[in-house]
Amino acid sequence: MSRDEREGQTSLDPAVAARLKRGADGLVCAVVVDHTTSDVLMVAWMDDEALARTLATRRATYFSRSRQQLWVKGETSGNVQHVREVRLDCDADTLLVRVDQTGPACHTGARTCFDADLLLADEDVQAS
Amino acid sequence: MSRDEREGQTSLDPAVAARLKRGADGLVCAVVVDHTTSDVLMVAWMDDEALARTLATRRATYFSRSRQQLWVKGETSGNVQHVREVRLDCDADTLLVRVDQTGPACHTGARTCFDADLLLADEDVQAS
Repeated sequence: MSRDEREGQTSLDPAVAARLKRGADGLVCAVVVDHTTSDVLMVAWMDDEALARTLATRRATYFSRSRQQLWVKGETSGNVQHVREVRLDCDADTLLVRVDQTGPACHTGARTCFDADLLLADEDVQAS
Repeated sequence: MSRDEREGQTSLDPAVAARLKRGADGLVCAVVVDHTTSDVLMVAWMDDEALARTLATRRATYFSRSRQQLWVKGETSGNVQHVREVRLDCDADTLLVRVDQTGPACHTGARTCFDADLLLADEDVQAS
Protein backbone atom coordinates (compact mmCIF):
# COMPACT_ATOMS: atom_id res chain seq x y z
CA MET A 1 0.00 0.00 0.00
CA SER A 2 1.43 3.34 -1.04
CA ARG A 3 1.58 6.39 1.20
CA ASP A 4 -1.13 7.98 -0.95
CA GLU A 5 -3.42 5.02 -0.41
CA ARG A 6 -2.84 5.03 3.37
CA GLU A 7 -3.85 8.67 3.34
CA GLY A 8 -7.04 7.90 1.41
CA GLN A 9 -5.76 9.13 -1.92
CA THR A 10 -5.53 7.07 -5.08
CA SER A 11 -2.53 7.65 -7.31
CA LEU A 12 -2.84 7.86 -11.05
CA ASP A 13 -0.64 5.46 -13.02
CA PRO A 14 2.48 7.58 -13.77
CA ALA A 15 2.40 6.48 -17.43
CA VAL A 16 -1.11 7.94 -17.75
CA ALA A 17 -0.30 11.02 -15.67
CA ALA A 18 2.64 11.80 -17.96
CA ARG A 19 0.38 11.61 -21.01
CA LEU A 20 -2.49 13.80 -19.77
CA LYS A 21 -2.68 17.39 -21.00
CA ARG A 22 -4.56 19.27 -18.32
CA GLY A 23 -6.06 22.74 -18.67
CA ALA A 24 -4.82 25.72 -16.66
CA ASP A 25 -7.16 24.52 -13.88
CA GLY A 26 -5.53 21.07 -13.81
CA LEU A 27 -8.60 19.39 -15.28
CA VAL A 28 -9.45 17.33 -18.34
CA CYS A 29 -12.86 17.14 -19.99
CA ALA A 30 -14.80 13.87 -19.65
CA VAL A 31 -17.53 12.99 -22.14
CA VAL A 32 -19.83 10.41 -20.59
CA VAL A 33 -21.66 7.98 -22.87
CA ASP A 34 -24.35 5.40 -22.09
CA HIS A 35 -22.83 2.01 -22.85
CA THR A 36 -26.13 0.52 -24.01
CA THR A 37 -27.61 3.33 -26.12
CA SER A 38 -24.38 5.23 -26.99
CA ASP A 39 -26.20 8.48 -26.07
CA VAL A 40 -24.01 11.25 -24.70
CA LEU A 41 -25.30 11.61 -21.14
CA MET A 42 -23.25 14.53 -19.80
CA VAL A 43 -19.89 16.26 -19.79
CA ALA A 44 -17.93 16.65 -16.58
CA TRP A 45 -14.34 17.30 -15.49
CA MET A 46 -11.64 15.20 -13.85
CA ASP A 47 -8.43 16.00 -12.04
CA ASP A 48 -5.77 13.30 -11.66
CA GLU A 49 -7.35 11.89 -8.51
CA ALA A 50 -10.86 11.74 -9.99
CA LEU A 51 -9.45 9.80 -12.94
CA ALA A 52 -7.38 7.53 -10.68
CA ARG A 53 -10.44 6.72 -8.55
CA THR A 54 -12.62 6.17 -11.61
CA LEU A 55 -10.09 3.72 -13.07
CA ALA A 56 -9.55 1.94 -9.74
CA THR A 57 -13.17 1.64 -8.61
CA ARG A 58 -15.22 1.80 -11.85
CA ARG A 59 -17.47 4.29 -10.01
CA ALA A 60 -17.50 7.48 -12.10
CA THR A 61 -15.85 10.23 -10.06
CA TYR A 62 -15.47 13.83 -11.21
CA PHE A 63 -14.09 17.14 -9.98
CA SER A 64 -16.74 19.79 -9.39
CA ARG A 65 -15.53 23.14 -10.71
CA SER A 66 -18.21 25.03 -8.77
CA ARG A 67 -17.57 23.26 -5.45
CA GLN A 68 -13.84 22.64 -6.10
CA GLN A 69 -14.02 19.09 -4.78
CA LEU A 70 -14.22 15.47 -5.86
CA TRP A 71 -17.68 14.18 -6.56
CA VAL A 72 -18.80 10.58 -6.93
CA LYS A 73 -21.64 10.67 -9.44
CA GLY A 74 -24.88 9.49 -7.78
CA GLU A 75 -23.48 9.58 -4.25
CA THR A 76 -26.48 11.56 -3.02
CA SER A 77 -29.04 10.92 -5.81
CA GLY A 78 -28.36 7.20 -6.23
CA ASN A 79 -27.99 7.75 -9.98
CA VAL A 80 -24.57 6.14 -10.08
CA GLN A 81 -22.46 5.31 -13.11
CA HIS A 82 -20.64 2.00 -13.40
CA VAL A 83 -17.70 2.57 -15.70
CA ARG A 84 -17.30 0.10 -18.55
CA GLU A 85 -14.50 1.72 -20.53
CA VAL A 86 -12.29 4.84 -20.50
CA ARG A 87 -10.45 6.22 -23.52
CA LEU A 88 -8.15 9.22 -23.98
CA ASP A 89 -8.27 11.29 -27.16
CA CYS A 90 -5.48 12.05 -29.64
CA ASP A 91 -4.66 15.36 -27.91
CA ALA A 92 -4.66 13.65 -24.46
CA ASP A 93 -6.94 16.37 -23.09
CA THR A 94 -10.34 14.67 -23.27
CA LEU A 95 -11.64 11.41 -21.83
CA LEU A 96 -14.44 9.26 -23.22
CA VAL A 97 -16.14 7.36 -20.41
CA ARG A 98 -18.65 4.61 -21.25
CA VAL A 99 -20.97 3.82 -18.35
CA ASP A 100 -23.94 1.80 -17.23
CA GLN A 101 -26.16 4.61 -15.93
CA THR A 102 -28.56 3.99 -13.06
CA GLY A 103 -31.57 6.33 -13.28
CA PRO A 104 -31.43 9.68 -15.07
CA ALA A 105 -27.98 11.18 -15.69
CA CYS A 106 -29.07 14.82 -15.44
CA HIS A 107 -29.64 16.64 -12.14
CA THR A 108 -32.90 17.95 -13.65
CA GLY A 109 -34.23 14.39 -13.78
CA ALA A 110 -33.86 14.19 -17.56
CA ARG A 111 -32.29 11.09 -19.06
CA THR A 112 -29.38 13.10 -20.46
CA CYS A 113 -28.12 16.67 -19.94
CA PHE A 114 -28.85 17.41 -23.62
CA ASP A 115 -32.57 16.58 -23.73
CA ALA A 116 -34.08 20.00 -23.11
CA ASP A 117 -32.45 22.62 -25.32
CA LEU A 118 -32.45 22.10 -29.09
CA LEU A 119 -30.60 24.91 -30.93
CA LEU A 120 -30.73 23.45 -34.45
CA ALA A 121 -33.16 20.74 -35.53
CA ASP A 122 -32.37 17.93 -37.92
CA GLU A 123 -33.35 18.88 -41.47
CA ASP A 124 -35.01 15.49 -42.03
CA VAL A 125 -37.12 15.90 -38.90
CA GLN A 126 -38.03 19.47 -39.90
CA ALA A 127 -39.06 18.28 -43.37
CA SER A 128 -41.31 15.48 -42.18
CA MET B 1 -28.39 42.43 -43.71
CA SER B 2 -26.85 43.42 -40.39
CA ARG B 3 -23.64 45.37 -40.02
CA ASP B 4 -21.97 42.18 -38.76
CA GLU B 5 -22.98 40.30 -41.90
CA ARG B 6 -21.74 43.10 -44.18
CA GLU B 7 -18.40 42.83 -42.40
CA GLY B 8 -18.29 39.07 -42.94
CA GLN B 9 -19.26 38.15 -39.40
CA THR B 10 -22.26 36.08 -38.47
CA SER B 11 -24.16 37.12 -35.36
CA LEU B 12 -25.39 34.63 -32.85
CA ASP B 13 -29.12 34.76 -32.08
CA PRO B 14 -29.28 37.04 -28.99
CA ALA B 15 -31.60 34.57 -27.23
CA VAL B 16 -28.93 31.87 -27.58
CA ALA B 17 -26.05 34.24 -26.76
CA ALA B 18 -27.81 35.24 -23.52
CA ARG B 19 -28.15 31.60 -22.50
CA LEU B 20 -24.54 30.47 -23.21
CA LYS B 21 -22.19 30.11 -20.24
CA ARG B 22 -18.72 30.59 -21.68
CA GLY B 23 -15.46 29.73 -19.94
CA ALA B 24 -12.91 32.38 -18.95
CA ASP B 25 -11.57 32.09 -22.53
CA GLY B 26 -15.00 32.86 -24.01
CA LEU B 27 -15.44 29.32 -25.33
CA VAL B 28 -17.89 26.47 -24.86
CA CYS B 29 -17.09 22.79 -25.27
CA ALA B 30 -18.57 21.00 -28.30
CA VAL B 31 -18.98 17.22 -28.30
CA VAL B 32 -19.24 15.99 -31.86
CA VAL B 33 -21.19 12.81 -32.56
CA ASP B 34 -21.57 10.80 -35.78
CA HIS B 35 -25.26 11.01 -36.73
CA THR B 36 -25.31 7.51 -38.21
CA THR B 37 -23.30 5.50 -35.67
CA SER B 38 -23.72 7.74 -32.58
CA ASP B 39 -19.97 7.41 -31.98
CA VAL B 40 -18.29 10.37 -30.29
CA LEU B 41 -15.93 11.60 -33.00
CA MET B 42 -14.08 14.46 -31.28
CA VAL B 43 -14.34 17.33 -28.84
CA ALA B 44 -13.65 20.88 -29.96
CA TRP B 45 -14.39 24.44 -28.83
CA MET B 46 -16.63 27.20 -30.11
CA ASP B 47 -16.82 30.91 -29.51
CA ASP B 48 -20.02 32.81 -30.32
CA GLU B 49 -19.06 33.29 -33.95
CA ALA B 50 -18.12 29.65 -34.50
CA LEU B 51 -21.51 28.63 -33.11
CA ALA B 52 -23.33 31.27 -35.17
CA ARG B 53 -21.61 30.09 -38.36
CA THR B 54 -22.26 26.44 -37.53
CA LEU B 55 -25.97 27.13 -37.01
CA ALA B 56 -26.25 29.33 -40.12
CA THR B 57 -24.28 27.16 -42.57
CA ARG B 58 -24.51 23.61 -41.12
CA ARG B 59 -20.74 23.39 -41.78
CA ALA B 60 -19.13 22.55 -38.43
CA THR B 61 -16.94 25.52 -37.43
CA TYR B 62 -14.80 25.64 -34.31
CA PHE B 63 -12.38 27.96 -32.54
CA SER B 64 -8.81 26.68 -32.40
CA ARG B 65 -7.34 27.32 -28.95
CA SER B 66 -3.80 26.73 -30.22
CA ARG B 67 -4.09 28.98 -33.28
CA GLN B 68 -6.62 31.40 -31.70
CA GLN B 69 -8.76 31.52 -34.83
CA LEU B 70 -11.91 30.14 -36.40
CA TRP B 71 -11.53 26.83 -38.14
CA VAL B 72 -13.96 25.19 -40.56
CA LYS B 73 -13.58 21.45 -39.99
CA GLY B 74 -12.27 19.79 -43.15
CA GLU B 75 -11.41 23.05 -44.90
CA THR B 76 -7.94 21.77 -45.77
CA SER B 77 -8.36 17.99 -45.33
CA GLY B 78 -11.74 17.69 -47.04
CA ASN B 79 -13.02 15.77 -44.02
CA VAL B 80 -15.96 18.10 -43.52
CA GLN B 81 -18.85 17.75 -41.11
CA HIS B 82 -22.41 18.50 -42.20
CA VAL B 83 -24.31 19.45 -39.07
CA ARG B 84 -27.60 17.64 -38.52
CA GLU B 85 -28.50 18.85 -35.04
CA VAL B 86 -27.12 21.06 -32.23
CA ARG B 87 -28.17 20.85 -28.58
CA LEU B 88 -27.14 22.81 -25.48
CA ASP B 89 -26.79 21.08 -22.12
CA CYS B 90 -28.55 21.84 -18.83
CA ASP B 91 -25.65 24.04 -17.64
CA ALA B 92 -25.56 25.89 -21.00
CA ASP B 93 -21.79 25.38 -21.20
CA THR B 94 -21.57 22.37 -23.53
CA LEU B 95 -22.88 21.75 -27.04
CA LEU B 96 -23.79 18.39 -28.57
CA VAL B 97 -23.28 18.51 -32.34
CA ARG B 98 -24.58 15.62 -34.48
CA VAL B 99 -22.89 15.48 -37.87
CA ASP B 100 -22.57 13.55 -41.09
CA GLN B 101 -18.80 13.04 -41.18
CA THR B 102 -16.94 12.85 -44.48
CA GLY B 103 -13.78 10.75 -44.12
CA PRO B 104 -11.98 10.27 -40.80
CA ALA B 105 -12.74 12.79 -38.04
CA CYS B 106 -9.28 12.66 -36.43
CA HIS B 107 -6.25 14.51 -37.78
CA THR B 108 -4.28 11.26 -37.30
CA GLY B 109 -6.47 9.60 -39.93
CA ALA B 110 -8.36 7.54 -37.36
CA ARG B 111 -12.14 7.37 -37.62
CA THR B 112 -12.53 9.08 -34.23
CA CYS B 113 -10.16 10.92 -31.88
CA PHE B 114 -10.75 8.22 -29.24
CA ASP B 115 -9.67 5.15 -31.22
CA ALA B 116 -6.03 4.85 -30.17
CA ASP B 117 -5.67 5.16 -26.39
CA LEU B 118 -7.64 2.78 -24.18
CA LEU B 119 -7.10 3.52 -20.45
CA LEU B 120 -9.62 1.03 -19.03
CA ALA B 121 -11.00 -1.92 -20.96
CA ASP B 122 -14.56 -3.21 -20.77
CA GLU B 123 -14.83 -5.99 -18.19
CA ASP B 124 -16.87 -8.15 -20.57
CA VAL B 125 -14.25 -7.81 -23.29
CA GLN B 126 -11.46 -8.57 -20.79
CA ALA B 127 -13.30 -11.69 -19.64
CA SER B 128 -13.90 -13.12 -23.10
